[in-house]
Amino acid sequence: MFYVIGLGLGDAKDISVKGLEIVKRADKVYLEAYTSILSVGQQALESFYGRELVIADRDFIEQQTDVLFDGANEKEIALLVVGDPFGATTHTDLVLRAKNLGIPYKVIHNASILNAIGCCGLQLYKFGETVSIPYWTQGWEPDSFFEKILSNKSRGLHTLCLLDIQVKEPTLESLTKKVKQYLPPRFMSTSEAAKQILQIIDKKEASAEPNLEKSVICIGVARVGSECQQIQACPLSEMANIDLGPPLHSLVIAGDLHPLETEFLEQFQTIPSS
Amino acid sequence: MFYVIGLGLGDAKDISVKGLEIVKRADKVYLEAYTSILSVGQQALESFYGRELVIADRDFIEQQTDVLFDGANEKEIALLVVGDPFGATTHTDLVLRAKNLGIPYKVIHNASILNAIGCCGLQLYKFGETVSIPYWTQGWEPDSFFEKILSNKSRGLHTLCLLDIQVKEPTLESLTKKVKQYLPPRFMSTSEAAKQILQIIDKKEASAEPNLEKSVICIGVARVGSECQQIQACPLSEMANIDLGPPLHSLVIAGDLHPLETEFLEQFQTIPSS
Repeated sequence: MFYVIGLGLGDAKDISVKGLEIVKRADKVYLEAYTSILSVGQQALESFYGRELVIADRDFIEQQTDVLFDGANEKEIALLVVGDPFGATTHTDLVLRAKNLGIPYKVIHNASILNAIGCCGLQLYKFGETVSIPYWTQGWEPDSFFEKILSNKSRGLHTLCLLDIQVKEPTLESLTKKVKQYLPPRFMSTSEAAKQILQIIDKKEASAEPNLEKSVICIGVARVGSECQQIQACPLSEMANIDLGPPLHSLVIAGDLHPLETEFLEQFQTIPSS
Repeated sequence: MFYVIGLGLGDAKDISVKGLEIVKRADKVYLEAYTSILSVGQQALESFYGRELVIADRDFIEQQTDVLFDGANEKEIALLVVGDPFGATTHTDLVLRAKNLGIPYKVIHNASILNAIGCCGLQLYKFGETVSIPYWTQGWEPDSFFEKILSNKSRGLHTLCLLDIQVKEPTLESLTKKVKQYLPPRFMSTSEAAKQILQIIDKKEASAEPNLEKSVICIGVARVGSECQQIQACPLSEMANIDLGPPLHSLVIAGDLHPLETEFLEQFQTIPSS
């Protein structure tokens, strides 16, 4: 049996009781470590579970499924993923590959940012399409997510922006070499995301195209579900200057606000002094 | 401290380890019993937790918060809700009322249908606005959700349809009486939802307005996350005749399908023989 077990968002104790039982008895337990991170690391998880975890990075998941699935017809193999198992395309693809190999699979669900974002008080049924904001590099500044934010906004809907995570990205120089070298991991902050969006607004200002106001209310969330969760609501222009601390961050661009939503947001409006 | 603890979707063991610790030590534990249901009932939860639960129905949550919050400044009061705490407006409102009374609160997240729907293989970032389909009564047949499905579909997005739950609905006759009488609980099935949508399509066919094809691919899911989870993918017209068994059900109207999504759906296309 191949299990994909969601760990939730906060710390080691956010795993479900069902998930923990499987982790404790499984023959082998992998920890997926590139689509998201918890606020605690591998060691905290290992000490809570009382067993060793094998790190499964991108190369392993994408290229070594024969190792990952080895013996899964007779044994219990578990893959732990932060959030919910189906939050990333990678995991859907993996489940499909298991199925095609005739390996039985089970999924243990958990919270993901897509529902936990409700912690900021915005109603989940009023969110439109979710977007991802990638880190820009020189000459590569994709902004298709901006049109989706506008499309949601025009219908009064909020937009959840998932912010780029770059873990174990090979350096450009090492791509053609036998031994890959990796860039240090980086996680886009709400401030970085706000700055990129403000740049797009500036570029569009010269044209007659629909645009976003720099004063649009947005909500930055950091380390949702953990003891050190932080939420900040303010205009987009201010978000660029606010530091919400360690990763992971997500950003919401508000659509039309219901009075209940506005009242809920009030508790997150104090700008931390720097 | 006032805790709102998500129970997830399947059974008693879908609670998180963190949530279970609080349930075991809290001074009083309420079970919210009208916005959703688990595939197991109160007794199974009580026997798993080893303690008594107090049922909190709609009247209680909406009108007796003074009882619910009684002593929450010194004691630990927990409210258990199916799915994630912020899945229903009721719970956001409740947290806000706690905050306004100066009662500290904490939220323990869990899976909700909004992310667990990924189990059907459709990618979560390709879902548009979520809609709710209400039971129609004579002379009251709201169909504003249909426009939202069309709006999502026109942009290639999937639509998650949450289906009506009627628990402890007072009978029309008893509304003016002192002693309320209640209708038996009912939970809309994917078949009932499909029939209502087909009726709307029929009505629109005479007009030149945009419409949905009856052959649109939809995915019915039942009891997601439980051992008896069932998923069915088929044209909308066929969904009307398929029985997915006991509640809860949800329905997805597919937008544009990526080859990976189509391949994933194949495993759910066998129509059960009746």
